[in-house]
Order: sequence, then C-alpha cells, then structure tokens
Amino acid sequence: MSPRTATTTAPLHPLLADRWSPRAFDPAPVDDDALRSLLEAARWAPSAMNHQPWRFLVGRSGRDGADAAHKAIFDSLAEGNQVWASAAPVLVAAVARVREENGAERTVAPFELGLAVSQLITQAHALGLHAHVVGGFDRDAVTASFGVPADHRVYAVLAIGRLGDPESLPAPLAAREAAPRERLPLEQIAYGEAWGAPAL
Amino acid sequence: MSPRTATTTAPLHPLLADRWSPRAFDPAPVDDDALRSLLEAARWAPSAMNHQPWRFLVGRSGRDGADAAHKAIFDSLAEGNQVWASAAPVLVAAVARVREENGAERTVAPFELGLAVSQLITQAHALGLHAHVVGGFDRDAVTASFGVPADHRVYAVLAIGRLGDPESLPAPLAAREAAPRERLPLEQIAYGEAWGAPAL
Repeated sequence: MSPRTATTTAPLHPLLADRWSPRAFDPAPVDDDALRSLLEAARWAPSAMNHQPWRFLVGRSGRDGADAAHKAIFDSLAEGNQVWASAAPVLVAAVARVREENGAERTVAPFELGLAVSQLITQAHALGLHAHVVGGFDRDAVTASFGVPADHRVYAVLAIGRLGDPESLPAPLAAREAAPRERLPLEQIAYGEAWGAPAL
Repeated sequence: MSPRTATTTAPLHPLLADRWSPRAFDPAPVDDDALRSLLEAARWAPSAMNHQPWRFLVGRSGRDGADAAHKAIFDSLAEGNQVWASAAPVLVAAVARVREENGAERTVAPFELGLAVSQLITQAHALGLHAHVVGGFDRDAVTASFGVPADHRVYAVLAIGRLGDPESLPAPLAAREAAPRERLPLEQIAYGEAWGAPAL
C-alpha cells in the first residue's frame, strides 16, 4: 500500500486503490507493446449496441524527440499543464463520435468514452505506468491539428508514463504530488430510496 | 482464460480481458460489503478539479424481495431488457451533474461518469461479479421516481450480480451469451499523425 492509496470503507482492488494522477513523469519512452496494451484495454470497453464511439489520437516522445502528434497535443495544453506534461512520453487525446449518421446527437457517447479511457488507465497501472486525465486544453486546436470530423468531439487529454521525481516539478506542484487524496463521502454520492438518501 | 476472454494484439490484465456483459444473472443477493466496494471504486475515479459529478441510485433485490429503488429502476427498463434484468440482484442508475452552479453546461461530466462506472465494473469483476451497462431505459421515469434534480442527467442503468445459467434465458438471448465478442480493429480507433492514420 502506497501513501497515495485511496482511503476506503471497503477493500478495493489495488489497481484501483493505487491509481492516482501524477504530474511528475519520467521522460523515458513507453514502448509500443505497452502502448498497444493500453489501447486494447480501451478497445474492449462496453458500449450500447457495441457502438464503440471512442477514438484516440496518440502522440509519442522518445529518444529521437517528440512526434508530430505529441507536439500537437502538447501545444493544445493550457500553460499550467504544459509545465508538467512536457515530460510525459505519451500524450493521448480522447475523442468520441457524438452524432449518428443521420446527424442526431448521441448523448451517451462521452459516457462510453469514459468507460474506455478508464480501462486504458487501469491497464496502464497494471503495467506500472500512470495516466493523468487533463481537462485544460484547447479542443479547437486538437480538432484542427488532426482534422477531427465535425461529428466527433475531443473530451480529454491523457498524459501517460512512468512516475517521475517530484523534485523535477516547480515547488507548488511538487507539494501536490504528496497531498492527501480526497473524495466526497460515499453517503453523498450513492442514494437509495430517493435522491439524497444514502444507499448504505 | 474463459471462452469470453477478449482477443487482443497485446496482453490485457485479466480483470479487463475477461469483462463482458451477461444477460443471465443469478438472483442470489449481493451483500452490502460487496456493494460498498463497488461504489468505493466509482468514488475514487478521477475528475477535472476533483469535481466528482457522479451520483448513483442503488436498488437491491434480496430474499425479502426487491426494494423500492430496484423496482423503480426495473420499471424504467425497456421491455427487451426487463426480460433478462429481472434476475439481477442489483440495479444501479448512473447519474451525472451536468450543470455548474451558474447553470453552464459541464460537457465533460458524462465522460467523468464513465470513468467512475468503469471502475465500478472492474471492481465487480475483482469480486467475481458481472455488470451489464444498459442504455435502453426511460430516463424521465428514473428522474421522476427518485427526484433527480434538473441539473443532473441519468446516463445508464447497470445490472449487477453473479453469472447465471444461460438456459434461464429465452433461446435467442441464451445464444448471445456464448456469441463471439467483437470490436473494431485497433487501427480503426487509434490514430497517429492525422485522423484515420493508424497509430501503431
């Protein structure tokens, strides 16, 4: 059990209990076999009618520098995220197809993208990697850089790699690497008889 | 490795590779410790700014029959889902807060709900349970039954329990319990330099 392990009222599988979102990444490359394993995890998520609305834009940085996709995703990040995400050897933009062939919105698509991305993160932890979901990025920039079609929408960027040295970060961010992880109590998120009435 | 294990081009953790969505459930109750563990898994998902937009409506069916929440969620299901979901001892409606305090839409909320639900499903498998995400249900009925606030939206129902006997299902559904699981090839969901160009 690491100091970052979730505090829970019932036992959790270590892959979930020990998952957290670091900012200190080791720039050592993630090999393609590992990357393939992460994407396979996402690929096998469930979706209504097996619709599989998830798409991934994958950028890699290695010993020869960053590829064009890594550069484009990195450039889309908010400055506050660029400070730390520059070390992440893999940056992935998570995209969902949000419209049917007939143009109707498919509101469940981002939910299903979340199912797929979570499986990717769990598999990352199974391989000794970490993944940090980033919301602070310029969606239009990613859309333009990759030619994301109009019936798709970019929801998140993932920074993926091995844990790095917190001392590599500016001091305020380094402190956050060791800060306690917190969540709302279970009673406030799981209801039974009616909205707001604790289930357990 | 079960006959339902995902066919992948790279190894997957068994919790992910062996996950699938059964229709045959054993009506034996899921005890509250296990249920708490599933909800804890969801609770510890990541979200932007730790916003935690996920809420869960939890219905249980046990030796004394179904509670009011289980009945309400069951009643919301499409007829084709009621056929098989009646045996599931736990039915959970997954809800996201989709508006900020100021009324602005928070488009990332369903994506984050998906992250939480996937962790719930993974933990279910870690406990020897299965979970089936159901899209065919009456959102307005769930909203009315539980008093879901207007700034929240119901995205899915989960049927949860132990695997049951496929022969308990009508023949066409029983056949689907053993049908091959299929997904788009990795090349069609993971892109590199540009939209549509395989990443690996």
